[in-house]
Amino acid sequence: MDFEKLLADRLNKMGASAIREILKVVSQPGMISLAGGIPSPESFPMEIMGKLTSAVLEKYSSNALQYDPTEGFTSLREVLVDYLKRKGIKSTANDILIATGSQGVLDSIGKVLISKGDRVAVEAPTYLGALQAFNSYEPEYVRMDTDDDGLIPQSLEKVLKLGGIKFIYLVPTFQNPTGRTITIERRKEIAVIIKKYNALLVEDDPYSALRYRGENIPPIKTHAPDNVVYVSTLSKVFAPGLRIGFCVAPDLIKKWLVIVKQGVDLHTSTFNQALAAEYLSEGYLERHLPKIIELYRPKQEAMLSALEKYFPEGFTWSKPEGGMFIWAKGPDGIDMEKVYWKSVEKKVAFVPGKYFFTARGEGIETMRLNFTMIDKKAIEKAIKILSEVIKGSRKN
Amino acid sequence: MDFEKLLADRLNKMGASAIREILKVVSQPGMISLAGGIPSPESFPMEIMGKLTSAVLEKYSSNALQYDPTEGFTSLREVLVDYLKRKGIKSTANDILIATGSQGVLDSIGKVLISKGDRVAVEAPTYLGALQAFNSYEPEYVRMDTDDDGLIPQSLEKVLKLGGIKFIYLVPTFQNPTGRTITIERRKEIAVIIKKYNALLVEDDPYSALRYRGENIPPIKTHAPDNVVYVSTLSKVFAPGLRIGFCVAPDLIKKWLVIVKQGVDLHTSTFNQALAAEYLSEGYLERHLPKIIELYRPKQEAMLSALEKYFPEGFTWSKPEGGMFIWAKGPDGIDMEKVYWKSVEKKVAFVPGKYFFTARGEGIETMRLNFTMIDKKAIEKAIKILSEVIKGSRKN
Repeated sequence: MDFEKLLADRLNKMGASAIREILKVVSQPGMISLAGGIPSPESFPMEIMGKLTSAVLEKYSSNALQYDPTEGFTSLREVLVDYLKRKGIKSTANDILIATGSQGVLDSIGKVLISKGDRVAVEAPTYLGALQAFNSYEPEYVRMDTDDDGLIPQSLEKVLKLGGIKFIYLVPTFQNPTGRTITIERRKEIAVIIKKYNALLVEDDPYSALRYRGENIPPIKTHAPDNVVYVSTLSKVFAPGLRIGFCVAPDLIKKWLVIVKQGVDLHTSTFNQALAAEYLSEGYLERHLPKIIELYRPKQEAMLSALEKYFPEGFTWSKPEGGMFIWAKGPDGIDMEKVYWKSVEKKVAFVPGKYFFTARGEGIETMRLNFTMIDKKAIEKAIKILSEVIKGSRKN
Repeated sequence: MDFEKLLADRLNKMGASAIREILKVVSQPGMISLAGGIPSPESFPMEIMGKLTSAVLEKYSSNALQYDPTEGFTSLREVLVDYLKRKGIKSTANDILIATGSQGVLDSIGKVLISKGDRVAVEAPTYLGALQAFNSYEPEYVRMDTDDDGLIPQSLEKVLKLGGIKFIYLVPTFQNPTGRTITIERRKEIAVIIKKYNALLVEDDPYSALRYRGENIPPIKTHAPDNVVYVSTLSKVFAPGLRIGFCVAPDLIKKWLVIVKQGVDLHTSTFNQALAAEYLSEGYLERHLPKIIELYRPKQEAMLSALEKYFPEGFTWSKPEGGMFIWAKGPDGIDMEKVYWKSVEKKVAFVPGKYFFTARGEGIETMRLNFTMIDKKAIEKAIKILSEVIKGSRKN
């Protein structure tokens, strides 16, 4: 049967995913992967899961298995008010929408805001999953400049001055892919700018709880509450397989996010929301989070040391205070996709950085390195091999 | 902040939901609701949930909490092959896509197939949740005639002959809202017609396991495997709060469903998929399903008897052999929305049938009655009150 002709036009832009193709080799046996973006299974609170499920079944009984309102499970929304308060965000349970992962929020945001051809402002580079969520609504992307301190506020203002931007998408803390964090000074500047232009900012914050050094920096939402949809997730501090994301959005936006989400999946798993409510309300998160941090901190240090020790001259890399990624940049002229193919031959994988840019030709000399999934020894080994591959490929 | 101007055009068609508005009163205290469409909490296998969660944590450990491929959890896809085989559907695990409820399948189908203005053929009346999923992709609906035996094949052929239909959407067994089932003879005719026109059918089958009388009728998918996306769910035979739906689709369609789902929620809850895999593979479903049937059968019989006993002359209603709904039709001229408002004053709610039609002015004299949520006594009482309200409103 030939169904090609039945496919919707929007798929034209979603077709061949080069990154999906090149990453297929990552699962080959023996591969040391710095390519992933997923938490270590050691970070999951396995030892309390039995207790947690029993408590949920006892406390909520059949309500934990029943259909539930699209907005989210009441107990979870209530306890998230406190969680958000600790991040400096004022909310009521009613302001909060639970979604099927933060990916679910991003999809609904796309559906609510993007008509074909609408302009969305994104960092260069930016998070690939957000682009994937938005792409099916056929936006045009407007790129904004970044440096070691994240988004450059002047670049944001320049873009907003031109007009016609539906919303701005940022990952301000320990960004995926760069690991960079927008400084507090810049956050305040950004808040002033979006207020000045009545702009809407989608602030995606999956990583800020994973801080290994330094001081917490409040979300941009705290500086411009009416202009920001704050998006977060429990995937990095509880378990990604439960698919619990959430957002706090201005009233009108939140109202529409609920309506579109109803069409997408009716609501997020009640059982998993109840587990999350219990995890937060009974203090499990508070007790478990330090363990996650102590798990990742040495891995990150190991990667930073290995980069220092092995990486060739002419390379620079980010030195994030938390998160899951380090971003490295080689000298002009080096093509990290070529390095990638040589590197996977030596059984080390990473993600060539160009895939995180919306403009073609950018980021050819960059790479994203993840340190959460493998142990310190493997990290050192991988960086050493990678350095040798890079040195070798520069000779040719 | 005025964000109205930021909203996407597609929301124009999704705005005010009249049915959502009128159903707000259903949650008033003391209301007997025949309006719902949700399983009874008594139908959930509460007594095994503790065992099930322990088994999953033991068997899959941290894999049950980790990110997982978009296509679905391998063990669940594998055991669904057997489940589908018992329905007469041949598949491999690779043909199966797990989604966040069957709503998740319907949303992805809309995204893969519907460009703005595309024509989708639906029964009159049809399932509201499907329209909600499709509406955000801005289709035009083409209505097809139905009678007591479901879709009239000649009506389908007439619509396909005109051309330009992206896909046909049907709920062939114990349909929501009518409870009607398409006969085996008609299924075969429908299969011949869709093959003749190279058409794609989306066969939504949430209810067929809930059969209280009579013989199983194989899905249309069994008669035209290459032309049908078969969609189903564990919401009615396990627990809706887990949000586990699935589909078996032709290769090209399945490939695209996976790509778009990745942007929507990355994947469905791994933990819940593992619970579902365990529920199916260890024989729990097989042992539990008869209990669900024995729970609902007397409720349905009570409603049919009460209708027989109390409902005024001039009314007819469906007599389904299973499912969750009965569809009643009054004499021409009666406006069931008016009846609704008088009925809720007397603390009995139902859904006026017109909301299930895509063409305005159809189904004014119809109503959908659900019998799964309340006990036999409440069912009899509700039907009695409803009958009195109808008789009263005809006098005025």
